[in-house]
Amino acid sequence: MDFNAQEHATKIIDFIRDYYQKNNLGGVVLGISGGKDSGVVAGLFAKAIGPENVIGVTLPCHSKSQDATDAVLVAEKFGFKLINLDLTSVYDQFEEEAKKIDDFVVSEDSEINLKPRLRMSSVYYLAQMYTKKTGKVYLVAGTGNKCEIYVGYFTKGGDGVSDINVLGDLTVEEVIKVGEVIGVPEQVLYKAPSDGLSGKTDEDRLGFTYADVAKVINGEPVDENVKAVIERKHAANQHKFNIPIYKK
Amino acid sequence: MDFNAQEHATKIIDFIRDYYQKNNLGGVVLGISGGKDSGVVAGLFAKAIGPENVIGVTLPCHSKSQDATDAVLVAEKFGFKLINLDLTSVYDQFEEEAKKIDDFVVSEDSEINLKPRLRMSSVYYLAQMYTKKTGKVYLVAGTGNKCEIYVGYFTKGGDGVSDINVLGDLTVEEVIKVGEVIGVPEQVLYKAPSDGLSGKTDEDRLGFTYADVAKVINGEPVDENVKAVIERKHAANQHKFNIPIYKK
Repeated sequence: MDFNAQEHATKIIDFIRDYYQKNNLGGVVLGISGGKDSGVVAGLFAKAIGPENVIGVTLPCHSKSQDATDAVLVAEKFGFKLINLDLTSVYDQFEEEAKKIDDFVVSEDSEINLKPRLRMSSVYYLAQMYTKKTGKVYLVAGTGNKCEIYVGYFTKGGDGVSDINVLGDLTVEEVIKVGEVIGVPEQVLYKAPSDGLSGKTDEDRLGFTYADVAKVINGEPVDENVKAVIERKHAANQHKFNIPIYKK
Repeated sequence: MDFNAQEHATKIIDFIRDYYQKNNLGGVVLGISGGKDSGVVAGLFAKAIGPENVIGVTLPCHSKSQDATDAVLVAEKFGFKLINLDLTSVYDQFEEEAKKIDDFVVSEDSEINLKPRLRMSSVYYLAQMYTKKTGKVYLVAGTGNKCEIYVGYFTKGGDGVSDINVLGDLTVEEVIKVGEVIGVPEQVLYKAPSDGLSGKTDEDRLGFTYADVAKVINGEPVDENVKAVIERKHAANQHKFNIPIYKK
């Protein structure tokens, strides 16, 4: 693989710094899941705009405590402030109201996707709160990488919403290499990717690996059946990027 | 204005019906605010896919009761089911958790934008719930019109998120004309546009009228100062459509 991680880490840091200077921005808020993507993004922003302008947020929602421990590792490594907004009671209150609807049925899809939407709502709430508090504009950083985006593995209106994205053109393998260069804690960087919601790893849920997705993206040889599954997923999720709009 | 409302109403209904048939879809969920945009969209969907496949939702969140009354008018007119999911306690629970953050400050922007984000989360939750219940896919219908979109007057990650939009290419005046053709109740159709959140009308908040926005869009004569304000708003909100992404 022809990918110079050191060079790209430097370029991403410059990209962030330039954008912040050009637009006179203040800081960034991002959810820290304890996984590698948010760890790498947080590290890059801390190096670009200074850790004092980075606010990491843990947003537990009936979550495993291990995720919070790993978030602390990342925050300590890069020296930014980590705050906590517990969404468990908010989620429970929502479900209580939803159950009052006479048509109510339990839907696993509804429940799984509600969490990233509440998290998105939270990081934007906090970005505007820190903007008010400091008088400088805070953005929300996205953490989606190229493989996830290719197969549409994100929640529309959830983790799919952000103000700036620095991993969107990097495969999972490239994200890890950038993470190694900037020193993301190993325990976080080499964790199996998981949404932290369904109790399964992403690759279990998807039925293929991100390495295979990278091969499809790069036009490298990959098992034809696996390729077909990935391309079907890609096509099926195009509605997350482009919606039908009636034109006069 | 060269706009044949009868013709476009028919074409929009065909557009919706074709999309549902082609993709084997079941129904639609949309928030009914009591304003004209959601009233017109609900009426068009009821005519296109049958009122039995339309679920309207009122999503009060510290809201005026008049909005709910007007929502009932729309549902009765077009014969679709109206359900209610009260977000007031969810919103309050969120604020209670946010106040536990040591940096907490009250931010009006945070509060105003939290509501449409909770509403978006709710309609998607319900769309997936009705999909589970009926075994047919329910979409979320957007209600943004061309004037609002032009000046970016929507909440990113809130009412800006949907699966299909039929008003996106229609000015406010054109939306009203389509509403007249399909029989949206007058009390709803001629109400001053308001987000129902800030207690002000949209035009008060924006400092210009949607009629002026339509003139700018259509290249018609408009006061130069007003035009400058509208174009500034348009430019300032481009970040809601295109975010910066680092490219290798």
